[in-house]
Amino acid sequence: MSRPILALLTYKGEGGQKTKYSKLPITVIKEKICMFLYELMPVEDAKKLLKSNLRTVGVEMADLEEVHRRVLAQDLFSLLDSPPFDRSAMDGYALQAEETFGHSVDNPVQLDIVDRLGAGNVSNVDLKEGEAIQIATGAPLPSGANAVVMEEFTQSHQDHLQVETAVIPGENVSPAGEDFKTGDMILRQGSVLNPPEVGIVASAGYREVKVYKKPAVGVMVTGSELVMPKSQLEGAEIINSNHFSVKFMVESALAVPDMTHCVDDYDLVRREFLRLLKNNDCLITTGGTAISKGDVVVDVAAELGEVLIHGVTLRPGKPFAFAVVEEKPVFMLSGFPVAAMVQFDVFVREILLGMQGFKRELHFITKNSTRKIPSTLGRTDYIRARIEGDAVRPLKIKGSGIIKSMVDSDCYIVMDENLEGVGSGEKCQVLPYHSLQV
Amino acid sequence: MSRPILALLTYKGEGGQKTKYSKLPITVIKEKICMFLYELMPVEDAKKLLKSNLRTVGVEMADLEEVHRRVLAQDLFSLLDSPPFDRSAMDGYALQAEETFGHSVDNPVQLDIVDRLGAGNVSNVDLKEGEAIQIATGAPLPSGANAVVMEEFTQSHQDHLQVETAVIPGENVSPAGEDFKTGDMILRQGSVLNPPEVGIVASAGYREVKVYKKPAVGVMVTGSELVMPKSQLEGAEIINSNHFSVKFMVESALAVPDMTHCVDDYDLVRREFLRLLKNNDCLITTGGTAISKGDVVVDVAAELGEVLIHGVTLRPGKPFAFAVVEEKPVFMLSGFPVAAMVQFDVFVREILLGMQGFKRELHFITKNSTRKIPSTLGRTDYIRARIEGDAVRPLKIKGSGIIKSMVDSDCYIVMDENLEGVGSGEKCQVLPYHSLQV
Repeated sequence: MSRPILALLTYKGEGGQKTKYSKLPITVIKEKICMFLYELMPVEDAKKLLKSNLRTVGVEMADLEEVHRRVLAQDLFSLLDSPPFDRSAMDGYALQAEETFGHSVDNPVQLDIVDRLGAGNVSNVDLKEGEAIQIATGAPLPSGANAVVMEEFTQSHQDHLQVETAVIPGENVSPAGEDFKTGDMILRQGSVLNPPEVGIVASAGYREVKVYKKPAVGVMVTGSELVMPKSQLEGAEIINSNHFSVKFMVESALAVPDMTHCVDDYDLVRREFLRLLKNNDCLITTGGTAISKGDVVVDVAAELGEVLIHGVTLRPGKPFAFAVVEEKPVFMLSGFPVAAMVQFDVFVREILLGMQGFKRELHFITKNSTRKIPSTLGRTDYIRARIEGDAVRPLKIKGSGIIKSMVDSDCYIVMDENLEGVGSGEKCQVLPYHSLQV
Repeated sequence: MSRPILALLTYKGEGGQKTKYSKLPITVIKEKICMFLYELMPVEDAKKLLKSNLRTVGVEMADLEEVHRRVLAQDLFSLLDSPPFDRSAMDGYALQAEETFGHSVDNPVQLDIVDRLGAGNVSNVDLKEGEAIQIATGAPLPSGANAVVMEEFTQSHQDHLQVETAVIPGENVSPAGEDFKTGDMILRQGSVLNPPEVGIVASAGYREVKVYKKPAVGVMVTGSELVMPKSQLEGAEIINSNHFSVKFMVESALAVPDMTHCVDDYDLVRREFLRLLKNNDCLITTGGTAISKGDVVVDVAAELGEVLIHGVTLRPGKPFAFAVVEEKPVFMLSGFPVAAMVQFDVFVREILLGMQGFKRELHFITKNSTRKIPSTLGRTDYIRARIEGDAVRPLKIKGSGIIKSMVDSDCYIVMDENLEGVGSGEKCQVLPYHSLQV
């Protein structure tokens, strides 16, 4: 089939306007092709553009057993009082507080034990003057009682109880609705269902709740040279490490990866592209974003939809591209593993989280650089580094493919495009990897 | 069956010595029972004792597809060079750098294109003087070439190439082994397999690696009054919110929960206790840690094994207990949801992580309290609070069962046992919930 190729016709770097591409025969625009990567979109503009294309992927009812770390898609009002009844907060004896007034260890009051009540039991006895009911923590306060005296302040023999302290009405009782009442809003739409949240949802009477769907993410790793890990390589074979690192990055964003590998063939890439998009909510590709005879992903995206970003002022990760195809986002990452990871951290993770209802802001921390870091105006650098107390040490990195640098580092130093670098000991903005996790 | 009950015979609060229990008929030691919860172990001693009982739960080989966030149980040495060959870092032309010396756009050098090489292809051509080979990013540098000139600095027409810049030997080439070499140690035992780590493991040639097993955690929620969530409760029924919150806490520690519910019956608790211990690496219970007729869990633990902790200087969460039964740890948490969560955060999470090879230290941050916080010498308080910039605001909490306070808060203020409180505006130690997550 004829292979269309794109010319960059208009571009404005500010405010997130869309880049316009036109499909022209490759020969006509040969000279323009190289412009693509040199008309770079500022990182912040690219982020804004991505956010403006962000939509959640729908909602579903989910059983409470399955909602860990999912995001609530409804305001939730309690169906119940919690606790549902006046409840003993201690092991002891339910009684009428007034009967203990003025009493102490030297002047105890004598009562009759008329019932014994474990958690889960309700007493049929209506408590009268001179009576007490033994009660376990969590059991409903019997009718006629208004306080609980702790077991430690009593002596008992058979059905005779001696109370050696005074209690006030309400003492050691958790009143019905103390935590929340029927009809109270207990959680807002957008709440993340961590252990305390799921506890409160259960206590409010819900067995299932409406949550945002987890995004299904097609991942297409392109590259004819890529093979699964093995201990002997032949010819030009390279191990497909992106298969694993991108898969795990998607999982770390609590989304569901659907992995495939594709050789650098326009028709095959196009076919897989459509298959993955049909089965998933979005698509991530690696490789094929620069301009060479084997780099076809951006061309396929342009044929099938609209390429809105191709090339950003980011290092590493300049050849990041983004398209919307069949109303679904397509994130095109570099083939180089480190560049792909940085592009994911800068552009993709927050969108995958946003698609499932997470709302959060990343916060930089400030550290003093252990050495001078050069940078270039107009480019955002993500420098792999290690935090050392109040200081941060940028790693010395030789090549762009150096995956070891990601393992050895625990944070990025982010040099934004207004900076020409920082001096030794000067403050810089740091993003710990840990803070990226949900 | 006869139900043994325990007397506390010796106890020393310091250095983590074991508490000794003796099985005596309940009538003999009635007065001593109440001592249990008032001979409390300091929180730090309890933590040390738990750590001293910590062992990893064994290792297994795992396919790289399944190792996300698991911990490596071997030092890993690369089986391969990475990259495995001298590799082009750019799209362009492989050539002999010396032929470009002194050339520029005004004085270009003319070469013949003798092959074209995509990623995944190896050239059979041995490059000679006057020749160039078109090469894609990632392709192996052809024999005879020592540099790559970027496509942007060339013009080509059919097989004629004009190079308009000079390159130095090695330019735009990633040499074999630049990232790491065969035999290099690439990851140490104990490394967490996050996306960068799994990328490097794949690149080193491994399809599977030795990892620590995830702990299988039996969870027994006790309480005759507990029912699954529903919108109408009857009698003394209380919703079993611990089923969900403890399950998710175990999941948040990357362990595998095996949930059950048991009524407050000694024989049933004993049977479930043994079943769960047999099928799992450890056991968590909720409820039944205080002393009342329905509270049987600690008694069962004492019959089957050795109770090492019963009661700690923690608020909330005082009745925490810990036993070793059949050489497996048993964590006995309160029935009250908030107390159970705090006990999990203080005592259990780090052990579950340690059992699967995680090594980490929790770090407090310092914030200024928005108001006076009273505390008591000799007791460690975990106060639910919210971070507000450089300040931290303790929540006002009425009752001990108030699960809403966990949802409304985002951190603990930790008042250790040496503190009698802090004044308004004074510094205090804060543990953000986020920092507890792996």
